[in-house]
Amino acid sequence: MRSPNRMKDYGSMSKEPEDVRLSVIDERIKDVKNIIAVSSGKGGVGKSLVASALSLSLARRGYRVGLFDLDLTSPSTHIILNVGETQPIEDKGIVPPKIHGISYMSITYYSGDHPTPLRGQEFSNALIELMAITRWGDLDFLLIDMPPGISDATLDIIRFIKRAKFLIITTPSKLAFETVRKLIELLLDLHVEIIGIVENMKLKKSDFIKINMDKLGVRYLGEIKFDEDLEEALGDVDKFSETDFFKKIEEIAEEILKTLASGAQ
Amino acid sequence: MRSPNRMKDYGSMSKEPEDVRLSVIDERIKDVKNIIAVSSGKGGVGKSLVASALSLSLARRGYRVGLFDLDLTSPSTHIILNVGETQPIEDKGIVPPKIHGISYMSITYYSGDHPTPLRGQEFSNALIELMAITRWGDLDFLLIDMPPGISDATLDIIRFIKRAKFLIITTPSKLAFETVRKLIELLLDLHVEIIGIVENMKLKKSDFIKINMDKLGVRYLGEIKFDEDLEEALGDVDKFSETDFFKKIEEIAEEILKTLASGAQ
Repeated sequence: MRSPNRMKDYGSMSKEPEDVRLSVIDERIKDVKNIIAVSSGKGGVGKSLVASALSLSLARRGYRVGLFDLDLTSPSTHIILNVGETQPIEDKGIVPPKIHGISYMSITYYSGDHPTPLRGQEFSNALIELMAITRWGDLDFLLIDMPPGISDATLDIIRFIKRAKFLIITTPSKLAFETVRKLIELLLDLHVEIIGIVENMKLKKSDFIKINMDKLGVRYLGEIKFDEDLEEALGDVDKFSETDFFKKIEEIAEEILKTLASGAQ
Repeated sequence: MRSPNRMKDYGSMSKEPEDVRLSVIDERIKDVKNIIAVSSGKGGVGKSLVASALSLSLARRGYRVGLFDLDLTSPSTHIILNVGETQPIEDKGIVPPKIHGISYMSITYYSGDHPTPLRGQEFSNALIELMAITRWGDLDFLLIDMPPGISDATLDIIRFIKRAKFLIITTPSKLAFETVRKLIELLLDLHVEIIGIVENMKLKKSDFIKINMDKLGVRYLGEIKFDEDLEEALGDVDKFSETDFFKKIEEIAEEILKTLASGAQ
């Protein structure tokens, strides 16, 4: 099954010519040096928290950072970062506002607080539209908060943002690992680069995830202890930056920079 | 927007005549007295754990119980219940095997351990196929482990299993609540019955979820403390039944039985 044409098996995404949409999106991200897709097998593992903390951490090191919340099923970064009343500016596309030094874009600017029960094709179109209209400009890092697991949206992002490298978040749970394993198999199959994995919400000593990642050939970037105080820091970036979670992410940022410098696998 | 025709806005699901598929599925579940869709706004809140424990708990009270894992994005009940090498039997459709006294059916019997990157339409079709072929027979309760959030799959299940009443699982987190709120709004909009909400993984005293559910008119069925020992009980039903989590679910089962007896809202 590991043929280079495997992508075709996943079906046609839209009736519009793909090359046109691809080239529009390519143009929008041409001055972005590194694209990191922060992804997980299932929800609730802390993916949005990692994406938010990592964006803040890289911005504070002086990098030009963008954060793109494409988790249309359960967008969270706007709450974590408390984006408030900010709005993108329309100017030959959409220019993301700056939030805490990060260029920030989210589907929630358009869906508001309403439920968004989009059917497959509409969902795909909304996502591609958002990728096609956002003007990121010059960036060192663009972090994408991905929808959890293997969905249409995941496949669309892989197809349209070919330079995206995956940072995978899991918890120590067998249930999380089960879906992460499937995601990793798919990424390897599609020849998508994987930067490594972060093990979040760790409660007890266990090598389960690390051992399994070694088997799969995925770099283990570090573990983060379960942080009870995180909830109260949501929406307060100063408080968030003081959490143990955030401090651990700063170390992991270092690992990610090293990995990217030496070439991801 | 609260028109009775709102469902139509969500688009056509398939080219096959809907009434034919509807009547096939209706026939399959005609001898099922109660259908409970165990649902959540986002993943990782313990939905599959609740669905599994509740199924076991009801079966032990002498009820005839079915568990239908339709969380195609991240199926977990087969791991929690350790279904092992069991298989459904083909007989004018598919007869679910009995696992720990529960009639059990999961997409994993067909997808195995492989990634299932189905596109929207294929996904819909796989789901509907599974609903249409499974012969549940006489049951007091059929619990459905739903895909998280508002997806095509959620909308398909609402459309095809009209008698399903929703049991909603959340955590105390603002991030979980944000997506749960959207799910509840959609269900109310579609006139789908909501049995109530369970607050899982509680760490600290907080009325945040309860207060907000009162506002939305959703019954608060109880809270479950974060249970560190749960992970080690996954796949071992005897151990699982001894956890604090399971014991709390037995109390919540009582609440659910009362609510169903008096009519859900």
